[in-house]
Amino acid sequence: MKTVQVALEARSYPIYIGAGVMTHPALTDHLAGRDVLLVTNGSVGPLYAARVETALSDYRVIQVTLPDGEAYKTLEGLMPIFDAALSARMGRRATLIALGGGVVGDMAGFAAASYQRGIPFIQIPTTLLSQVDSSVGGKTGVNHPLGKNMIGAFYQPQAVFADTDVLSTLPPRELSAGLAEVIKYGLLGDLEFLHWIDAQLPALMALEPTVMSEAIARCCAMKAAIVAEDERESGRRALLNLGHTFGHAIEAHQGYGAWLHGEAVAVGLVMAARCSAGLGDLTEAEVAKVIDLCARAGLPTQPPQGMTATDFMTHMAVDKKNLDGQLRLILLRCLGEAYIEDAVDPAVLAHTLEVSCCG
Amino acid sequence: MKTVQVALEARSYPIYIGAGVMTHPALTDHLAGRDVLLVTNGSVGPLYAARVETALSDYRVIQVTLPDGEAYKTLEGLMPIFDAALSARMGRRATLIALGGGVVGDMAGFAAASYQRGIPFIQIPTTLLSQVDSSVGGKTGVNHPLGKNMIGAFYQPQAVFADTDVLSTLPPRELSAGLAEVIKYGLLGDLEFLHWIDAQLPALMALEPTVMSEAIARCCAMKAAIVAEDERESGRRALLNLGHTFGHAIEAHQGYGAWLHGEAVAVGLVMAARCSAGLGDLTEAEVAKVIDLCARAGLPTQPPQGMTATDFMTHMAVDKKNLDGQLRLILLRCLGEAYIEDAVDPAVLAHTLEVSCCG
Repeated sequence: MKTVQVALEARSYPIYIGAGVMTHPALTDHLAGRDVLLVTNGSVGPLYAARVETALSDYRVIQVTLPDGEAYKTLEGLMPIFDAALSARMGRRATLIALGGGVVGDMAGFAAASYQRGIPFIQIPTTLLSQVDSSVGGKTGVNHPLGKNMIGAFYQPQAVFADTDVLSTLPPRELSAGLAEVIKYGLLGDLEFLHWIDAQLPALMALEPTVMSEAIARCCAMKAAIVAEDERESGRRALLNLGHTFGHAIEAHQGYGAWLHGEAVAVGLVMAARCSAGLGDLTEAEVAKVIDLCARAGLPTQPPQGMTATDFMTHMAVDKKNLDGQLRLILLRCLGEAYIEDAVDPAVLAHTLEVSCCG
Repeated sequence: MKTVQVALEARSYPIYIGAGVMTHPALTDHLAGRDVLLVTNGSVGPLYAARVETALSDYRVIQVTLPDGEAYKTLEGLMPIFDAALSARMGRRATLIALGGGVVGDMAGFAAASYQRGIPFIQIPTTLLSQVDSSVGGKTGVNHPLGKNMIGAFYQPQAVFADTDVLSTLPPRELSAGLAEVIKYGLLGDLEFLHWIDAQLPALMALEPTVMSEAIARCCAMKAAIVAEDERESGRRALLNLGHTFGHAIEAHQGYGAWLHGEAVAVGLVMAARCSAGLGDLTEAEVAKVIDLCARAGLPTQPPQGMTATDFMTHMAVDKKNLDGQLRLILLRCLGEAYIEDAVDPAVLAHTLEVSCCG
């Protein structure tokens, strides 16, 4: 078992990574009282909820099964969690455990942040994407018809348990979507890691356990370091959004859930690279390298059929990373180094969109 | 103008109290960007929104008018705020101003806490109750069918503007409801203040400006001191719930909005006093004093017709102040000193409920 610590003073917490950590005795060390609200969904619950419940046999565990999919990630979609907690008369010392992918983690985390103004919670992410990204850093929330993750809270868990055993039941498309975020970490901050991913991609695709644990731990460590510096995204944390402004536009255009988040991010990484090339910071060969890596990871590298440059501009205008109407993009100074650009050259952006949408 | 400071380190903020403070130049000092979301309701908006908008003529102000009443204080009821903010493409530097009573403040505060995971907000409370209590201390949230304020956040405003001018348009019932909270402060922590309220009650009922400002400032100062010690209600802050466990049961039983919050709290204060007398801490004469003070302030002193001891027990069992199923009450050691009781003698509680419900 590897452990990565997220250093946030009073809100610091560990991420446990490895095979079988979901039932590790450390799980009960992080419970506040005797009550547990186990929030999962209809795909993950049948596979793993019983395993977690067995590890919690000395506790009162109430299970809430959310419908599966990003389409249910709404404010109203939180009600089953609150209904269950209140029906079971759970107090402020109950602990909420999120067992599932990013959608379950985001929703359950925001429910934990809001239930009685905040109860402790634990993340057991069951997709690669949530293990390397969304379960770490305390971003929780739900979507609004006009934008993704527009309603939520910064709320840190007590602990994260990233169990690599669960990845064996992950559909190949979801594995690829997780690899998009892994590639993102290499691109945004660690060229050596990017080379490592390139070399280890076959082992990652084959779910080789030690290689996978190493990848997850490295991503979590990078994210933990950035979050520790800038918990509420007033500065550097925005770098983690590399590929996301374009990606969110794709998700919004397609309707949430049509594309997997990681798939949209992969196209966003390619578009960010292309934009950086337009600004003279990346070579065309480097853009090709990003495209090649994403393609080999089983990811799309072009926006969906029929999505236009105008569609991108419309959706990007309401993205959260805009400060008072200004479009903020995360771009690449070079492979392995991202930066925040608040005043991108409109001509370069327009060209990027045109080329990408016609590509 | 009086100013009371709430000392919460990085989240410290001032409360400005006095006639006309709603349009004081200090208002714009607390705005983050150029965008303002002014959240009000159908009763308060027509009276005061234009006044605030004039003071903000250099800003882009979008007004959201919520339906008036506690019945709309739900998770779904927040959607008009999010809809307006996103339709106007407001970013993270927009400031939300809550113009209204406790319901508007609680809802708008939670919307500010949740919109894009938190934007700055300012409270302009327009009822006595919200000026002395709910606008101070950062408790925000909405109701759930199974309990009051069960979904929310601790989220501090940038500033509070308690304008005594607005009290002149307050219905007498709402003025009385506010006085219930004023009496609560005297009872829970300051016998000298309780005597002052007793003596000044006619002046308070007549809205005598200097007396009213003094009362508001003293309540805010007491609340600020308690909140500074215990922001997230892990200890002493619970004292502010004197009368509230009984009061919430009344509100839940009646359906939110039938009784004003302060009216229910007044009965709760009487019941807490009666329970304390049952435990030997207060004399019957002191209970009579509490009843007399509430009655003279125009407040009810008995639970609603037909509400039984069993009704109380049912509703109190889900009150937030219960830790893992244990009933927590705030009781009086003597007039002017409250304490937290986690193990009240069931016989004394039963007697209190019987006497109160048959009274």
